[in-house]
Amino acid sequence: MTAGKPTSLTTANMSPPLVIDGLQYCRWTREVFLHMREGGIDAIHATIGYHELFREVVGNITAWNKLFAENSDLILHARSLSDIRQAQASARTAILFGLQNCSALEDDLGLVKICFDLGVRFMQISYNRQSLLASGCQEKNDSGLTRMGEQAIREMNRTGIVVDLSHASERSCLQALACSERPLAISHAIPSFWHKTARSVSDEVLTALKNNRGLLGLSLYPYHLKNHGDCSREDFCAMVARLAEKIGIDAIGIGSDLCYGQPDSVLAWMRQGRWNKPSREQEKQPSFPPQPPWFQDNRDFPTLHEGLLQAGFSTAETEKITGGNWARFFEHSFSPQNNTKQNNTKQNNTKEA
Amino acid sequence: MTAGKPTSLTTANMSPPLVIDGLQYCRWTREVFLHMREGGIDAIHATIGYHELFREVVGNITAWNKLFAENSDLILHARSLSDIRQAQASARTAILFGLQNCSALEDDLGLVKICFDLGVRFMQISYNRQSLLASGCQEKNDSGLTRMGEQAIREMNRTGIVVDLSHASERSCLQALACSERPLAISHAIPSFWHKTARSVSDEVLTALKNNRGLLGLSLYPYHLKNHGDCSREDFCAMVARLAEKIGIDAIGIGSDLCYGQPDSVLAWMRQGRWNKPSREQEKQPSFPPQPPWFQDNRDFPTLHEGLLQAGFSTAETEKITGGNWARFFEHSFSPQNNTKQNNTKQNNTKEA
Repeated sequence: MTAGKPTSLTTANMSPPLVIDGLQYCRWTREVFLHMREGGIDAIHATIGYHELFREVVGNITAWNKLFAENSDLILHARSLSDIRQAQASARTAILFGLQNCSALEDDLGLVKICFDLGVRFMQISYNRQSLLASGCQEKNDSGLTRMGEQAIREMNRTGIVVDLSHASERSCLQALACSERPLAISHAIPSFWHKTARSVSDEVLTALKNNRGLLGLSLYPYHLKNHGDCSREDFCAMVARLAEKIGIDAIGIGSDLCYGQPDSVLAWMRQGRWNKPSREQEKQPSFPPQPPWFQDNRDFPTLHEGLLQAGFSTAETEKITGGNWARFFEHSFSPQNNTKQNNTKQNNTKEA
Repeated sequence: MTAGKPTSLTTANMSPPLVIDGLQYCRWTREVFLHMREGGIDAIHATIGYHELFREVVGNITAWNKLFAENSDLILHARSLSDIRQAQASARTAILFGLQNCSALEDDLGLVKICFDLGVRFMQISYNRQSLLASGCQEKNDSGLTRMGEQAIREMNRTGIVVDLSHASERSCLQALACSERPLAISHAIPSFWHKTARSVSDEVLTALKNNRGLLGLSLYPYHLKNHGDCSREDFCAMVARLAEKIGIDAIGIGSDLCYGQPDSVLAWMRQGRWNKPSREQEKQPSFPPQPPWFQDNRDFPTLHEGLLQAGFSTAETEKITGGNWARFFEHSFSPQNNTKQNNTKQNNTKEA
């Protein structure tokens, strides 16, 4: 940290700083899009599917296309950093598509390219439990990455879909980080050293992520926060400062995991999917916890920004955490791998920079 | 016709003339792609589905993606005229995706945009029989365009998928031409005045197509040709000359309907689909007819070019028919309608030119 460093534009380029949220799964309505504008958010990675098979995800995309048409004054569908810049220039919020599980691939890796062509830019390799690609963080035995998982990571690398390790098991994370030829993301999680949950990120994974030039989006989902909804902004921002000392500022973004307006039945769907019958003690429906007072919804991004400044980050550092790092990450993640000589040179230059 | 007019580049722009085939459904193998190179073909519109539902068409696209990867020295997937120019510059053939029926839309017009995003650039509103969008040319009662058909044409207009009237009924063609705000295509057919079949194009449809600034791709499928496989090149090219007098050279392209290498079972699939049981006299499997000797496969495009010159077309006119007109048509067909002011201006300018 270099508190007091003069204000600067993000290093990715000389355009105005971008505010980007690395994951949300709100009940998408015009109200939410208005909140995004009020909060000054230029882009979010929106979850468009969990346990849905491919054809069902297509149905979710057609629903999004309706939202884009009906709210074209507030949002647009982004496939690249350039689309996000276009959103910023027209005072709108760019929506990036992502999947929180790999069910949409069914058993066919040909669907990776198809998902990319439909605009999907993030895909998790598992969601809590075993998938065809990897063990999840709540699986009985952590068997890590499967053979199909290795191939899927290669195919996501090739096409330009970011491998997202949120909800994956420890071993899956480490093996995926070792296997991937491109930087990976953990779009929404918190470090174990601050608050240990089944899917907090261990020190070992943090180090591997740093070496991979990957990015961790910090979650503000109350079950992830120390003291849950009672977590103070100061405590959260002090954790960010500690994390920055550990892995460097460039590896940190926000991935709020905001689920604004979702009914509790959606939480049950996320957790149970299509086969996980709740045990007797779980039969009481789970419910979404209350957000901390300083991060209620998308309008509170400036509050978070302020908290980071108060924790001692400079303006330039804060701008990296609240969007600049995601922007740099997106710039080199969403184009096909080694597509042209030009791309190669560009990526190599970045690595050398 | 202005025979003897000096050689010129196509009017679409000053790049070298393009050779384009407006429809093929070959059994796609490396041999066919080599033939395309030998025939000097820069782009073809390839059928990727008939009666398949959406998910099955996605399977066909993943099969094509495999072909693109395995034959990247010969072919590429094109979504725009600019991709076709790229293919030309790298001595490859550009493949445009199209559907010969609307089954892939199921009952959901949201799938039009999804198909566009997956690269589909042509879609027929029916194939011989009744579809959800329109009557086909072999239907019992010609009830024309359905209510869903009207909406589908608007949505195809909006997204940038060309409405293809091949195999549609007379009334469906006329109503679609009246309804569409953008130029339409009949990608593969012949005029009734030369040879009358169930799906030849009547004088009335030809006139409406001319007024719509649409394009007719002339078929070389033997069942469409006068005297079938015995049709002479002279007779075919004389028909083209007569057609040019009737509707002008700018409305004419080639849509060979070449089905090279397909087994006869594929012809049965095209004709019967999933419900049309053959009658007793039809129980003998249909078979593909032999091609005329002067148009056996993709290597014979230069022969066709030569025939048009011999029929009295100038080089410039011949180049329009063998690709220039499709290139001009593609240039304004594959972008979203009224997407930006710039696009509007571009289209208006073209109309005034």
